[in-house]
Amino acid sequence: MSEALAPGSRIGILGGGQLGRMLSVAASRLGYLCHVYDPMPNPPAAHVAAKLTIAAWEDKTALAQFAADVDVITFEFENIPTATLDFLEPLRAIRPGRNALAISQDRLHEKEFLRGLGLLTAPFRAVDVREDLVTALEELGMPAILKTRRMGYDGKGQALLEGAGDIDKALATMGGAAAILEGFVAFSHEISVIAARGLSGEVAAYDPGENLHKSGILRETRIPARLSANQRSDAVLLAANIMNSLDYVGVMAVELFVTQAGLIVNEIAPRVHNSGHWTQNGCAIDQFEQHIRAITGLPLGDGSRHADVLMENLIGDDLEHLPELLRARNVAVHLYGKPEVRPGRKMGHVNRILS
Amino acid sequence: MSEALAPGSRIGILGGGQLGRMLSVAASRLGYLCHVYDPMPNPPAAHVAAKLTIAAWEDKTALAQFAADVDVITFEFENIPTATLDFLEPLRAIRPGRNALAISQDRLHEKEFLRGLGLLTAPFRAVDVREDLVTALEELGMPAILKTRRMGYDGKGQALLEGAGDIDKALATMGGAAAILEGFVAFSHEISVIAARGLSGEVAAYDPGENLHKSGILRETRIPARLSANQRSDAVLLAANIMNSLDYVGVMAVELFVTQAGLIVNEIAPRVHNSGHWTQNGCAIDQFEQHIRAITGLPLGDGSRHADVLMENLIGDDLEHLPELLRARNVAVHLYGKPEVRPGRKMGHVNRILS
Repeated sequence: MSEALAPGSRIGILGGGQLGRMLSVAASRLGYLCHVYDPMPNPPAAHVAAKLTIAAWEDKTALAQFAADVDVITFEFENIPTATLDFLEPLRAIRPGRNALAISQDRLHEKEFLRGLGLLTAPFRAVDVREDLVTALEELGMPAILKTRRMGYDGKGQALLEGAGDIDKALATMGGAAAILEGFVAFSHEISVIAARGLSGEVAAYDPGENLHKSGILRETRIPARLSANQRSDAVLLAANIMNSLDYVGVMAVELFVTQAGLIVNEIAPRVHNSGHWTQNGCAIDQFEQHIRAITGLPLGDGSRHADVLMENLIGDDLEHLPELLRARNVAVHLYGKPEVRPGRKMGHVNRILS
Repeated sequence: MSEALAPGSRIGILGGGQLGRMLSVAASRLGYLCHVYDPMPNPPAAHVAAKLTIAAWEDKTALAQFAADVDVITFEFENIPTATLDFLEPLRAIRPGRNALAISQDRLHEKEFLRGLGLLTAPFRAVDVREDLVTALEELGMPAILKTRRMGYDGKGQALLEGAGDIDKALATMGGAAAILEGFVAFSHEISVIAARGLSGEVAAYDPGENLHKSGILRETRIPARLSANQRSDAVLLAANIMNSLDYVGVMAVELFVTQAGLIVNEIAPRVHNSGHWTQNGCAIDQFEQHIRAITGLPLGDGSRHADVLMENLIGDDLEHLPELLRARNVAVHLYGKPEVRPGRKMGHVNRILS
């Protein structure tokens, strides 16, 4: 642990949403203090952070003060403006590094990177203009999904194409942004691997979880996922392969489609992930602590699991079920402290300990 | 839940040590914000609290502002000056209430209260002057322990008497403070019950843990404790009896000696307790969240346990073992963020998940 940050060191977190909030709590368990940077006032992480900066991503004075105040910088979401990272990078170590972020910020680069590693992805074509889309649809067939290359999350910036009549509407959804067409993948279910790579290159992975989405938003993750022993080890090795090739430091989520042709990579997220929330109540060391361990140079936890878990997101009006959830046996409630309930907004989650 | 505090409400915590710190984290999980009040700068809870007041217990301006800022007040230790509580009580609800605090602040009142409930305690005598002690020793025999009636913790303010030659030294340890002599109890082991009583009177208890002390400081708690089924239910019912008689709201710890004559109450603590830290990794709902649920009027969690756990305190130089603890399988590390290691100082704890 010679290169590990000493207890009492300060971790800078870009983004103060629920992921930053839970990272801050995990950091406190290891004796670290967190300084959260977010452009919006009163972010969820503010309630549990030692220090808070509310300033724009473009505010170089605030960014410089933030970098000077912390010992390492991490982030809770991948859509941080490139210029912000360009400014911070020479001032303080950013973990995970820029290359992982750059790849995951662009769906086209991400797919090309994954193919370059010999991994399977959905068939895809770059779509910059209408003609590209027409050609791509001829080659990949329908149904297909048009997605913006950048800044998409929770199903936003996506359009399903089921016939030629959908072309104009789909292009309108892109709003002129560079896009990618993804061909149809016949999959039985989706899983995700939450894995971590430490500063010295060691890798640890949690047991893959099985995800259920509705309207593009994750609704639940069940552990264990339905997988053969071979699929399980393939999934974990594949995640390790991705992290090693990026010299990655931190927790990464890899979403995979389970198909008859094998495991197809849907997307990667260079951060803690909603589908890893179950680790809070299923493991001695959860994904948030694992990420903090990785970026501070501490040894990784082993990721072993002591329970089966069903994680259910609380989205918008789901909060109405809170009274019964609080009374339920073996159910852990995790709320994010967001002041306003809005449709589609993630307000919290519960982990049901199943065994 | 009509009388429960809504998410976003503010909880005031008197005392910002490790217990206040872990209470603040638990409150955040339920969507509450914490305001911590402590006389010492940079207390451990400051790293994870939404708001902090550093002011003396006698600072009425600061106390009034604190009370006005929060929706309910609780505390992390029982030795808060009476005048502070007298001042706060008319301004804002304090939970648990003053009566439990008053009893637990005075070892003599505590023992008389417990006897009044028909519970067993060690034999005891009040000791105000030297003559009291001489008489008490004649009646109770030796070995015996002289303890200050008020403000003792972690073995401080205590003196063992094994012969008449120890009398003067023991009295000197008291420094003129009112004291109590406790007679010898032959016990096989010590356990503690961590239980909670909600605002509407419902009670929940965790499985009792078995405590090992060294030099008056808790070293470890093991769950389950060595108890017969009858002893286990006796212990829990006894804790419920104590809480009901006080119309108690919150988590209480009851330390018990297991003897051939039955369970003898050693002491009660009207707060979350070191011997309940194992619940963080053994239960869906830990003692800190249970306390927050109780004082905010939420339903209590059921307290069921999904694992056997060994909790070990990290005291002073124990921190040297941190590298191996971080690498150990199924070990959860919890550090308190205290800047200086001092002999006898509780720096953190680990929960070993045993099964």
